[in-house]
Amino acid sequence: MTEDERAIRELISTWMTATRAGDAPTVLRLMADDAIFMVPGQEPFGREAFAAASTGMKDVQFDGHSTIKELQILGDWAYLRSFIDLTVKRPGAPDVHRAGYTLTILRKQPDGRWLLARDANLMTAK
Amino acid sequence: MTEDERAIRELISTWMTATRAGDAPTVLRLMADDAIFMVPGQEPFGREAFAAASTGMKDVQFDGHSTIKELQILGDWAYLRSFIDLTVKRPGAPDVHRAGYTLTILRKQPDGRWLLARDANLMTAK
Repeated sequence: MTEDERAIRELISTWMTATRAGDAPTVLRLMADDAIFMVPGQEPFGREAFAAASTGMKDVQFDGHSTIKELQILGDWAYLRSFIDLTVKRPGAPDVHRAGYTLTILRKQPDGRWLLARDANLMTAK
Repeated sequence: MTEDERAIRELISTWMTATRAGDAPTVLRLMADDAIFMVPGQEPFGREAFAAASTGMKDVQFDGHSTIKELQILGDWAYLRSFIDLTVKRPGAPDVHRAGYTLTILRKQPDGRWLLARDANLMTAK
């Protein structure tokens, strides 16, 4: 495994751990300033909307895991495909199970850090 | 506009024209042998499943267009984000309007041709 591949796998693992812990600041540090997120049925949104949504989910707990299905390093860029399986727990509401695949573009910064740049998330309620 | 960018824009335009014309062989020539397609609520599928689905849609007509929102060339790879707006017409059934964004990875072949390699299609019924 190359150093780049190891760094990207660590990013994905940290992202999921921080999501489970409700640690939005850590997740925000893993994405580029101009990151774009795409989900079904919505307009693409950026870092600020991601942050605002996280703030609105303070009472929400996430439990789940992601599995990397494919990772290709393309110089200072990379793409990966993963499968995410997530249970969303809100106080006083039934659990919601969501699962699906993602296609993600990552970019290596001049300082060597990898950050998430584009993300298409195809998760649906199960 | 670089030669690579022009070639990719032409590929996307040809793809949509061939789709509207029901010309599956042309669409199949625009994708890599190991292409992977991802849509919400389904397992990812490849070229053969794409071809089989096209054969099963001989009576279906597609009308619509795609707009490229972003195109980044990364050496012999590229990614693009587009918006697709499509009306699906089946004989004896009401028209179905589908729209949404895509995130696509393309790869340049040794002979210089660009082919679609990975595609996450977030279109939903409208």
